[in-house]
Amino acid sequence: MSSNPPKLLDGNALAALWKQKIKVACAAFDQKPCLAAVLVGSDGASQSYVQFKMKDCQEVGFQSKLIQLPENTSQASLLQTIEDLNKDASVHGYIVQLPLPKHIDEQTIVAAIDPTKDVDGFHPLHAGRLMLGRPGFVPATPWGIVAMIDHYNIPTEGAEIAIIGRSHIVGRPLSVLLSSSPKNGTVTLLHSKSKNLKEHCLRADILIAALGKPGFVTADMVKQGAVVIDVGTTRVQDHSIARGWRLKGDVDFEQVAPKTKAISPVPGGVGPMTRIGLLHNTLEAYKTFNP
Amino acid sequence: MSSNPPKLLDGNALAALWKQKIKVACAAFDQKPCLAAVLVGSDGASQSYVQFKMKDCQEVGFQSKLIQLPENTSQASLLQTIEDLNKDASVHGYIVQLPLPKHIDEQTIVAAIDPTKDVDGFHPLHAGRLMLGRPGFVPATPWGIVAMIDHYNIPTEGAEIAIIGRSHIVGRPLSVLLSSSPKNGTVTLLHSKSKNLKEHCLRADILIAALGKPGFVTADMVKQGAVVIDVGTTRVQDHSIARGWRLKGDVDFEQVAPKTKAISPVPGGVGPMTRIGLLHNTLEAYKTFNP
Repeated sequence: MSSNPPKLLDGNALAALWKQKIKVACAAFDQKPCLAAVLVGSDGASQSYVQFKMKDCQEVGFQSKLIQLPENTSQASLLQTIEDLNKDASVHGYIVQLPLPKHIDEQTIVAAIDPTKDVDGFHPLHAGRLMLGRPGFVPATPWGIVAMIDHYNIPTEGAEIAIIGRSHIVGRPLSVLLSSSPKNGTVTLLHSKSKNLKEHCLRADILIAALGKPGFVTADMVKQGAVVIDVGTTRVQDHSIARGWRLKGDVDFEQVAPKTKAISPVPGGVGPMTRIGLLHNTLEAYKTFNP
Repeated sequence: MSSNPPKLLDGNALAALWKQKIKVACAAFDQKPCLAAVLVGSDGASQSYVQFKMKDCQEVGFQSKLIQLPENTSQASLLQTIEDLNKDASVHGYIVQLPLPKHIDEQTIVAAIDPTKDVDGFHPLHAGRLMLGRPGFVPATPWGIVAMIDHYNIPTEGAEIAIIGRSHIVGRPLSVLLSSSPKNGTVTLLHSKSKNLKEHCLRADILIAALGKPGFVTADMVKQGAVVIDVGTTRVQDHSIARGWRLKGDVDFEQVAPKTKAISPVPGGVGPMTRIGLLHNTLEAYKTFNP
């Protein structure tokens, strides 16, 4: 057991600080940054994510624009929308909410977004810039995690860092960011084919769970005094709540927290910082238009 | 000590097989693939690398074109050469030999190369495609190492893989390739800031040394029965040879080899396969012109 209670990596509090900072920056602009979101179809989760993003814009003083298209929108028609957004000087950054309906090829869509407006950072050019250590838009979740690490002064140089999950939008880019200068961690990227996963986790000074399996990380997988960052946000049934579900992370928080030096909760950890990532990138996109 | 002598990962023999394969493919084409190389200045090592590349083209039946520019070539003038090559339909792929003189910004130059002709795979778009698991030109050295792993049927799925060195052209892309599907290794990327480097190496089923420090990997860092791949090619003084130098790898071969299941020598290991990588990418570039 840890002699001191673990520090909570409070994503809500940190996000509030960032929102204030962005709001102040925004107040100084005559023309306001504008984020557009394209939503195809009526998936419930996607709709609520997009609503949150629009609400975040409002809070910090950004303009926002929601383009809702029916489920049966053709790929050609969506590409036309993208072309329009690429040309629209009043839109500084935009996202196409994923996943898209199955008849639309996501890679084709993402590649059509003007990289200077691709505030999700999903375009291959941004992935390449990230890999080569050059400026570009970092996807929102890895950005948020790095911002959290920075804020809480978590030492990364030479630290043993285990990341579980190699998705293109979280684990993979995070593994590159944390093993590159200036973070300089020693990163092991773990995934479904890894053997000795527990042993790798037990060696980690910083353990990051981004695999999307609720409660996967248990106390026996965590080194005493480690920092644990939980990226999981799975909706699990909970009929004690009116909406019928709650978010559950990849870490068994109750069991794991007492062993850690610091830990991010779910909800209220990485999630709020992911939302800041999008605002941050939108502000950066705006600045490239108004340098 | 190993009961069986280690298998030699013979880059020369494998490169000869590949050359034959590419030569046969090339013989079937009326118009031949053409690789151009731009060499700025008169650095001795760069000149000999470029000469090797031109010679390789000749051997497999490719056309080649060497564009030599003086050391004091301006960046604008080099960019014009690149623009000409981008437009030149007779050139299917080209490289700009690095390093460039200090008054020229390499990133600007590389970003100006048409990605469809960037057979070095250095353009950020190729780095991004590699990171996202999409088709693109893989830099020659990581390509050659993966080809070697494939040829010798070295199991990678779930294997513990330690890579020493995180350069943009070797360690970093290799770490992505080997930890992605279909290789599915558990990769730890080690570098100058890593602590416990020896412990990580000792756990590795596959140890890849790409840091450029001759003899860095010693026998006490290698697990009995591991596969060791040596990417180092440092020129060290050797006055017993007329030219005054020889190539030395990052691995102390004599001492390490007896502990390994398989090991690549220097010279004659990764080096020849790196040269095949360029031919392979040129052939692929040609096919995009003549699908």
